[in-house]
Amino acid sequence: MAIIVQKFGGTSVADAQKIRRAADRVIKTVKNGFAVVVVASARGKQTDQLVADALELNPNPPKREMDQLLSTGEQQTVSLFAMALDTAGYKAISFTGGQIRMITDNVHTKARIKSIGAERIHEQLNKGRIVLVAGFQGIDENENITTLGRGGSDTTAVALAAALGADECEIYTDVDGIHTTDPRVFKTAAKIEQISYNEMLEMASLGATVLHSRAVEFAKKYDVKIHVRSSSEETEGTMITHEVPQMEGVLVSGATIQKDMAKLSLVGVDNKPGNAAKIFAHLAKAKVVVNDIVQTEVSSEKANLSFTIGISDLTAAKEAVGQIKDEVNCESIFTREDIAEISVVGVGMRTHYGVADRMFGALAEAKINIDTITTSEIRISCIVDKAQAEKALEAVCVAFDLDKPIEKRKN
Amino acid sequence: MAIIVQKFGGTSVADAQKIRRAADRVIKTVKNGFAVVVVASARGKQTDQLVADALELNPNPPKREMDQLLSTGEQQTVSLFAMALDTAGYKAISFTGGQIRMITDNVHTKARIKSIGAERIHEQLNKGRIVLVAGFQGIDENENITTLGRGGSDTTAVALAAALGADECEIYTDVDGIHTTDPRVFKTAAKIEQISYNEMLEMASLGATVLHSRAVEFAKKYDVKIHVRSSSEETEGTMITHEVPQMEGVLVSGATIQKDMAKLSLVGVDNKPGNAAKIFAHLAKAKVVVNDIVQTEVSSEKANLSFTIGISDLTAAKEAVGQIKDEVNCESIFTREDIAEISVVGVGMRTHYGVADRMFGALAEAKINIDTITTSEIRISCIVDKAQAEKALEAVCVAFDLDKPIEKRKN
Repeated sequence: MAIIVQKFGGTSVADAQKIRRAADRVIKTVKNGFAVVVVASARGKQTDQLVADALELNPNPPKREMDQLLSTGEQQTVSLFAMALDTAGYKAISFTGGQIRMITDNVHTKARIKSIGAERIHEQLNKGRIVLVAGFQGIDENENITTLGRGGSDTTAVALAAALGADECEIYTDVDGIHTTDPRVFKTAAKIEQISYNEMLEMASLGATVLHSRAVEFAKKYDVKIHVRSSSEETEGTMITHEVPQMEGVLVSGATIQKDMAKLSLVGVDNKPGNAAKIFAHLAKAKVVVNDIVQTEVSSEKANLSFTIGISDLTAAKEAVGQIKDEVNCESIFTREDIAEISVVGVGMRTHYGVADRMFGALAEAKINIDTITTSEIRISCIVDKAQAEKALEAVCVAFDLDKPIEKRKN
Repeated sequence: MAIIVQKFGGTSVADAQKIRRAADRVIKTVKNGFAVVVVASARGKQTDQLVADALELNPNPPKREMDQLLSTGEQQTVSLFAMALDTAGYKAISFTGGQIRMITDNVHTKARIKSIGAERIHEQLNKGRIVLVAGFQGIDENENITTLGRGGSDTTAVALAAALGADECEIYTDVDGIHTTDPRVFKTAAKIEQISYNEMLEMASLGATVLHSRAVEFAKKYDVKIHVRSSSEETEGTMITHEVPQMEGVLVSGATIQKDMAKLSLVGVDNKPGNAAKIFAHLAKAKVVVNDIVQTEVSSEKANLSFTIGISDLTAAKEAVGQIKDEVNCESIFTREDIAEISVVGVGMRTHYGVADRMFGALAEAKINIDTITTSEIRISCIVDKAQAEKALEAVCVAFDLDKPIEKRKN
């Protein structure tokens, strides 16, 4: 029997009524002839409450104990969910991460999955039961409870779909799918029907928050079809799959806006082999996550080096760069915090000309100055003034018809 | 290093302030040179809330899922408790029942302990850590979470004390120890300094609610000293131990009052071998827990048979007895619900005369009629009208000086 994994986020199971509605979804899928495995997050604000309880006792709680505490939220949801299915006449059984041997490394609060025991789930599915698995959690090899960090329940769902050989992994959420851009900024953003893992990865790492990039990476690696859809509406959502030929016909699949970032520039660094390596080794040691890097030669001996980081890393980055400044003979350092990054993403740009052109043109027409440009194979990003960020995103969205369904866009 | 197990009930860990106070207790014991293992219950009304959440979704929730749900309450407490100890500068580690291999049978919601893995706890204690164990829970041999039912955390604590070879098991509660009787009825009830397991068992099964009889049975079986004491005051509480010679010098250790009971009488049952067995087999099949049984011959062929039960079992008991009525040739059945049982308990009555005498005299003087009398080696119980129950208890307490310390009682 074909298996479907269905993941319900915290807002979709926030109270009894919502759990019942989610249970109805599951039952409908069972009636359609599928074996269903449900992954659920903690109810509504439960995790926030537990975090507050912890911080009241300890401003810096030990991570192992945090995992021990927070994992209870998902455990509660899946047992309650099983009870709701039972009332409706469906046999169901709930499991913690530990009970299905979701083995992770021992990096508490952001553990990575090492293996999953699929046997116990298959055994229960074969008995005709609906299986519920607490998302976000696992155990290390010493039975310590671990959690997977941000987007953890999505990752649990995708990993289970991979381990079980499921047909599809459905992610139920409070939006009706992935949109071409953030609808809070560009209100008429169109829903994407289909998007490739690579595009979704770029968009997720650029600030699209519907799905965490770790879950997408997992899906890409194990070829799991993800269907992001609404928990309150019956409509089809967005399918995230391997690249299919027709995807190349679309110039740009989506656009993103990223704030909360900063740029550090090292002016007049000695352009010698190994200098860049030294700088980034220093930053890595200070646990600064570096996003885009741009280096340009300014003379035969000197180069300017810029990179972007999350704003929360700025202090650590400044300190790290300050320590290495003299060693690489850097003339001066300057930072910008008043910036944002606008990107367009699309596998189509690999085979089409004119994408960069159209993006820069749209920004110019809107009188927006571009600070830095970076590109990847399927992405173009421009750093602009933060104050102009929304205006810039809108201009780009309009230029690429991101408010229209694919068939109505000009190419 | 000597080990002490300290158990904190739900009211003793209800909020952050109370958890901190409980942590201070633990730290004090560590400073006194002991290795400490803490067992904690769910915070305050958490379990009630979870039960309400469950019933909102399912009026008859599957027991396995109930255990999966309710066990989270204790897990939350112990991780928060560990965080409180960490803030205070003490290394601590919390465990669920499953993590320390608290293996039980698979009778969900009232499982019985089969074995405990003491190694992991010893290992952590040897590292100088305070170990916290979630009370009330275990796992069966298939890693399903089970709970131990009423008084479960007390049982966890005593069982751990036995498995670890602890010096003592301290039960912290909101009263300062065991009293000669319920202070809500007889306000001047004296605190008992020392009481034997057998006396405590009689008192617990007769309605003394401070400590559950399962925990006491466990302690008796494995010779674990229990110290019941106040979580808010520094005073010594009550030691529950094996019988020591001086205990015999006390006529009566305590008195109990039990309401919520009913009596069923079968009048004129054929007095043939096997009839009583038939009746009680029928009751057992209907899962009725029978307390005291009294049978008296009324002629060479006929006997009257009475027994007491909890009032919640009355309907089931009536039905069971109704089915067997004709088979045992019973003339009539009558029930009483307006009754209560007053008992006195004491190992001293094994070697002293006049206890029954004094009890019946006290009741007579207070003009209280006795319906039924039953006795065990260390107990005398009288069934009286419910309306006179408090008055009866008071009369008995005064007769045995249960408001005075032992040395001031008349023997």
